[in-house]
Amino acid sequence: MPGGTTRAWRTVLERIESDLLEGRLGPGDRLPGERDLATQMGVGRSSVREAIRVLESMGLLRTASGSGPNAGAIITATPEGGMATLMRLQVAAKGFPFDEIVDTRVLLESAVVHRLATADEPDLGPAESTLQAMRDAALTPEEFLALDAQFHVWLAEASGNGVVASVMSGLRTAIESYARAGAALVDDWPAMVENLQGEHESILDAIRAGDPDLARTRVRDHIVGFYAATHAAHPNH
Amino acid sequence: MPGGTTRAWRTVLERIESDLLEGRLGPGDRLPGERDLATQMGVGRSSVREAIRVLESMGLLRTASGSGPNAGAIITATPEGGMATLMRLQVAAKGFPFDEIVDTRVLLESAVVHRLATADEPDLGPAESTLQAMRDAALTPEEFLALDAQFHVWLAEASGNGVVASVMSGLRTAIESYARAGAALVDDWPAMVENLQGEHESILDAIRAGDPDLARTRVRDHIVGFYAATHAAHPNH
Repeated sequence: MPGGTTRAWRTVLERIESDLLEGRLGPGDRLPGERDLATQMGVGRSSVREAIRVLESMGLLRTASGSGPNAGAIITATPEGGMATLMRLQVAAKGFPFDEIVDTRVLLESAVVHRLATADEPDLGPAESTLQAMRDAALTPEEFLALDAQFHVWLAEASGNGVVASVMSGLRTAIESYARAGAALVDDWPAMVENLQGEHESILDAIRAGDPDLARTRVRDHIVGFYAATHAAHPNH
Repeated sequence: MPGGTTRAWRTVLERIESDLLEGRLGPGDRLPGERDLATQMGVGRSSVREAIRVLESMGLLRTASGSGPNAGAIITATPEGGMATLMRLQVAAKGFPFDEIVDTRVLLESAVVHRLATADEPDLGPAESTLQAMRDAALTPEEFLALDAQFHVWLAEASGNGVVASVMSGLRTAIESYARAGAALVDDWPAMVENLQGEHESILDAIRAGDPDLARTRVRDHIVGFYAATHAAHPNH
């Protein structure tokens, strides 16, 4: 059945989406197994499996590893993973130019620190702890960059908008491999770390001082500066 | 082969991603057919098909409708579709609260109009034509809302950042069904249209006048006002 099989996976996806929307399914619930879903929806098992892969890669399902095809996957809602996969693939396929990813980060993070600097008592604790952990001189560049990414995500979380936090985290992950490649090209990595740490501290200082414009300027300079310093590793230049 | 088949689709996905990254594959290229890909990668055809569905739903592939399983899909990079699917599913699964989607739109669109208002000669042509088309009194609410969405995407495009435009368009689509349901609950739809149109005009006026702060305020009031007016249709309230 040519036309039939090709689009049957979309039918499964739409059915699960409407079950989610109407509350018949929610986070933590387990989907029926492949065979049962196929019977219920009148489609082939391969179509069910295709829809499940799509949901899994979009961060909507967690499949228990090692479980057989009859154990249903668990509904979850972890947007960061799906967002990161999508953006990484779009960067790879040249749908998202590198410069525009950086520019979008600047735009979102400027708004985040602006909000934090005007907030009453922003919860900077997790960001501060991350910065503390980044002082460990034994960190590899990869470990340092992972904590660095986390620092920025904590700021976004502290601003109270999880959608912004996951878009930001997706954007960052999409260009992570360039950041790592760029770090490898930096002559004096310890000096770079020193710089970056100083910038992180100064962003927090501006937030604590309640100076939204200074916080914006500092976060912009920090992001643009980092990618400029690791410029050689970028595509589309 | 339990563990084997489960993750084989990820192998296919990673291989295609690295082919894209290293330029062996690019937009417009045709993937080999399912059977050939399966042989090349040493995995089953069903795993190839699962990876292809994931790529398709993320906006990376276009499969010719009606073509058999041996005709390869064409590489494309159309982030809007993938972004919209992901965000819509995350809203459905309660990963993205409605309020935070609206808030993220406000944040991005404020930045967009701020940029346009400070730009030298922003290209407002497409946004103006869309506004013109929206004056047709015969439009259904659905048609009006689709043009309305397009108006906002044109502004984002005019600001020169396609990533922002697709994130914005994804956010909007994610909550489109609520906007439509909300429109149906509005007592006096023609009055609402009149209002919305006036707001659109006034946003363009502020951009043309080169007043970034006014443009920001107007776009924020416009977005927040619309969702407040159609409040009853929202989830998580």
